Amino acid sequence: MSRDSKRSVVLSLQCPDRVGIVAAVSQFVASHGGWILESSHHSDVDSGQFFMRDQILADSLSFGLDEFRSKFEPLATSFSMTWRISDTSAPKRVILLVSKQDHCLSDLLHRWRNREMEFEIPCVISNHDDLRSFVEFHRIPFHHVPVPADDREPAFRRTAALIAENGPDCVVLARYMQILPEWLTREYAGRILNIHHSFLPSFSGARPYHAAFERGVKLIGATCHYVTAELDAGPIIDQDVMRVDHGDTVDEMMRLGRDVEKMVLARGLRYHLQDRVMIHGSKTVVFS
Amino acid sequence: MSRDSKRSVVLSLQCPDRVGIVAAVSQFVASHGGWILESSHHSDVDSGQFFMRDQILADSLSFGLDEFRSKFEPLATSFSMTWRISDTSAPKRVILLVSKQDHCLSDLLHRWRNREMEFEIPCVISNHDDLRSFVEFHRIPFHHVPVPADDREPAFRRTAALIAENGPDCVVLARYMQILPEWLTREYAGRILNIHHSFLPSFSGARPYHAAFERGVKLIGATCHYVTAELDAGPIIDQDVMRVDHGDTVDEMMRLGRDVEKMVLARGLRYHLQDRVMIHGSKTVVFS
Amino acid sequence: MSRDSKRSVVLSLQCPDRVGIVAAVSQFVASHGGWILESSHHSDVDSGQFFMRDQILADSLSFGLDEFRSKFEPLATSFSMTWRISDTSAPKRVILLVSKQDHCLSDLLHRWRNREMEFEIPCVISNHDDLRSFVEFHRIPFHHVPVPADDREPAFRRTAALIAENGPDCVVLARYMQILPEWLTREYAGRILNIHHSFLPSFSGARPYHAAFERGVKLIGATCHYVTAELDAGPIIDQDVMRVDHGDTVDEMMRLGRDVEKMVLARGLRYHLQDRVMIHGSKTVVFS
Amino acid sequence: MSRDSKRSVVLSLQCPDRVGIVAAVSQFVASHGGWILESSHHSDVDSGQFFMRDQILADSLSFGLDEFRSKFEPLATSFSMTWRISDTSAPKRVILLVSKQDHCLSDLLHRWRNREMEFEIPCVISNHDDLRSFVEFHRIPFHHVPVPADDREPAFRRTAALIAENGPDCVVLARYMQILPEWLTREYAGRILNIHHSFLPSFSGARPYHAAFERGVKLIGATCHYVTAELDAGPIIDQDVMRVDHGDTVDEMMRLGRDVEKMVLARGLRYHLQDRVMIHGSKTVVFS
Repeated sequence: MSRDSKRSVVLSLQCPDRVGIVAAVSQFVASHGGWILESSHHSDVDSGQFFMRDQILADSLSFGLDEFRSKFEPLATSFSMTWRISDTSAPKRVILLVSKQDHCLSDLLHRWRNREMEFEIPCVISNHDDLRSFVEFHRIPFHHVPVPADDREPAFRRTAALIAENGPDCVVLARYMQILPEWLTREYAGRILNIHHSFLPSFSGARPYHAAFERGVKLIGATCHYVTAELDAGPIIDQDVMRVDHGDTVDEMMRLGRDVEKMVLARGLRYHLQDRVMIHGSKTVVFS
Repeated sequence: MSRDSKRSVVLSLQCPDRVGIVAAVSQFVASHGGWILESSHHSDVDSGQFFMRDQILADSLSFGLDEFRSKFEPLATSFSMTWRISDTSAPKRVILLVSKQDHCLSDLLHRWRNREMEFEIPCVISNHDDLRSFVEFHRIPFHHVPVPADDREPAFRRTAALIAENGPDCVVLARYMQILPEWLTREYAGRILNIHHSFLPSFSGARPYHAAFERGVKLIGATCHYVTAELDAGPIIDQDVMRVDHGDTVDEMMRLGRDVEKMVLARGLRYHLQDRVMIHGSKTVVFS
Repeated sequence: MSRDSKRSVVLSLQCPDRVGIVAAVSQFVASHGGWILESSHHSDVDSGQFFMRDQILADSLSFGLDEFRSKFEPLATSFSMTWRISDTSAPKRVILLVSKQDHCLSDLLHRWRNREMEFEIPCVISNHDDLRSFVEFHRIPFHHVPVPADDREPAFRRTAALIAENGPDCVVLARYMQILPEWLTREYAGRILNIHHSFLPSFSGARPYHAAFERGVKLIGATCHYVTAELDAGPIIDQDVMRVDHGDTVDEMMRLGRDVEKMVLARGLRYHLQDRVMIHGSKTVVFS
Repeated sequence: MSRDSKRSVVLSLQCPDRVGIVAAVSQFVASHGGWILESSHHSDVDSGQFFMRDQILADSLSFGLDEFRSKFEPLATSFSMTWRISDTSAPKRVILLVSKQDHCLSDLLHRWRNREMEFEIPCVISNHDDLRSFVEFHRIPFHHVPVPADDREPAFRRTAALIAENGPDCVVLARYMQILPEWLTREYAGRILNIHHSFLPSFSGARPYHAAFERGVKLIGATCHYVTAELDAGPIIDQDVMRVDHGDTVDEMMRLGRDVEKMVLARGLRYHLQDRVMIHGSKTVVFS
């Protein structure tokens, strides 16, 4: 069986490192019949923190998630764990925020149509109306919320209300091109993913391709990261690059960069949806 | 602490998959104080085989390897494990076989000089005398064993004798350019690494760059694999590629390819030396 | 100005190599005011053939394409050139042939919607009806031509008729999954592009991901090539690869491979549409 | 014949772009029998500057370089060219500056031993004595010039004197780990290459791997650039990256990074030695 094709539950946890964590967790899982499909560990040397993710065949467990939670709680407490268990057959709800450019949107909708990643899209929100018909072709609600440059706050409150109504697991800024207010980034801390069109920390902020062109770099990149109050400084989930040369204009860098952006955002979202990402301060552990 | 910088022991095992393997092994390790630095698992779906590698801080264990072996044996037997434990502070012995080209040799000697990978080189054996001074500069014995095209067998017996005298953990064909006799590949099954200068299975056999040039491929590659009786068909450890275009002649493909060969062989050898590779039929599990 | 953003004409030629070709062609272009935006040359050493591509600002020329053709002909004849001049502002007509999988189709339609590459899609032809609504959303005619396994020839004649009616510059097999009859490949020699889901020449033919999985390769790939009578043996335009490991099932290789297929096909088609590809025997010169 | 294997001369030039440059240059070369092996052009759109490099078979020209220079001068003047012609059979002289780490040194010496790139190494200069025996094994003079932290200037003057005595075409900082004084960078402007161990402009200055680790990037890189008075801000020749993950410590990033540094420096130096790099303000045109 593929590690993705069968219904499974994902247990992810972090706690101070010590001897016996894996033994205790594995013993717990095994004692309830749990068949482990995939298991990943990481010990962070500097902080002494331990991270673990187990993907377990759902049907192998002798009980459901609620009972798992109550039975596992004492063990978790004894190791001071921060932990979570989720059912991969309950698709996560992802709200997409877009602007006018549709390369990331189009790419994600394709993966959604083909069920390449299991997720639901309760709605798409945009500050422009351009992408309405393409979204609605997919029978997904499209909300046009203009963001006037001189009066953004009401627009963000309206956006936040739409997000809240749809109870998402996460929000994806698929080239939304607006800086979210701090209160919104805090409300969904660790649950808003952005794709930035540079290889961070180089060229944060606006017009990164122009800056890359000016500096004469030989590779351009893209970065998928969690949004925090500080612009383009959140924990990085994934990055990638593409070669350019002196013959590439800013327009051509933008064209080439779109392909990197699509790939990096799709990978980052996939990791997030499968509970493969654990935030640790300003960095991430990604059990890819 | 780095996962590489402290003295550690590596436990690697494979057995039929079932519930409770990780629990049993982790429980055993924890009960003897073992601090796990790195842990990797893999379930092969088709064959139902389970693979596991634990890297354990040596000083955390309450006993040495011999006692580990005797105490672990009953558990291993009950799960029908094939297993091994090794001490990373006891550097493995690697014999290099080379011909006239020295790019892989030079690269490996650099990594050896800098202790980038911990291993000993008891000797270098070559069918040509060209590389003697460079090897001897490193105070490593160099044996020149010519392999006449019309009478290879005595040369291979002499080579085998030299290998046997030096009791190596593994033998590396660092562009040796000779096909080893079947009896020798069997004697060191799973312990002879070759670097082939193509992206296998394309262009196996002789003159792969010429074949790549003729076919007009847009990427050239290299493959590190275990040597088996069938030429270039052994389990693959690592591969990589590099872009070429219509302007690249065979000579330039060879030049570009040398950089890929060096990298792939160095990575493959590193995985092997750190017990990260487990052979499974004609394939490998590589816990990189 | 970007080399892509202004209306330009492309002159591409090949002829036996000798002294003075570039001088004669450049002199001709300059004498008629031609402003060269991009110029590429290649001398094939083995065959002694010379290849050249000039992209010229259309408005800089003192006359149109017809007059260019008649004036250039004597020079071309004196050098025994095979040559072509085309206007990039006259978008090429591309017919897409698809089956059930839509990742390449979806990717190309996105690039078409965004005018990332200038081309027209007179119709999409498929042996299944699955992708009709997505294609028709783009207001592109969709023709369902089933290809029964026991009676393919009539289907291919019907397909050929549809192609002929639409007078395409090229035909793209965007995961069509059918082997075209030899007579059809000959009729559109050098004008049918296929995306094969392996790094050719490895794993030609059916089920390449299964073959790659069985062999245990550490990279999977895709190849864009011109279709010839011999299956998967036509001149290669572009290739790329992606890393996989022992944990990737065939299904996961297919998922990862789709992203490589999309990219490689889009790049190959772009090169073709911009007259950057020149066929030379069983190979290509690609002025990327 | 390979574009690299025969004796050839390289003509490289830049001038304001206009119609007829290629025609005039090609006409000149052809009229003197010049057989062009490789030709590259670039029009910089923003500045209106044109760049060109012709590699010409030396034996095909009816005269030597001196006569070429005098005959070409009028044409060059009429187009306001900055230009240069060089003979690839006269190997350039490259002085290497190193510190204690030898990965770049070892890599370059290997390429020098194997004549993979044609260059001479009149001497190696180091602020430490560690690498003396390895350098002297190659029969290359080694100069130990300590650079005391509290009195650097005399050391740099001694270094500059050694450089001047050896009349180099270029100087390579192969992990020299010292910031050259401004007067020295000015004296050899466009002729000092540095390898910086990050993907610039990220992580300029000291300890880039530590900074990369702190930021949690998912790729590390290296940059080969010309040294200017401003630290790590000179024109970039080449860059590349390598994937890392949360499991990689700073030590492991350093280890992985060394392989990128070696490759990028070797490529950058090769481009420079073959007159493939033309500096244009703070950027480069690289005819790779």
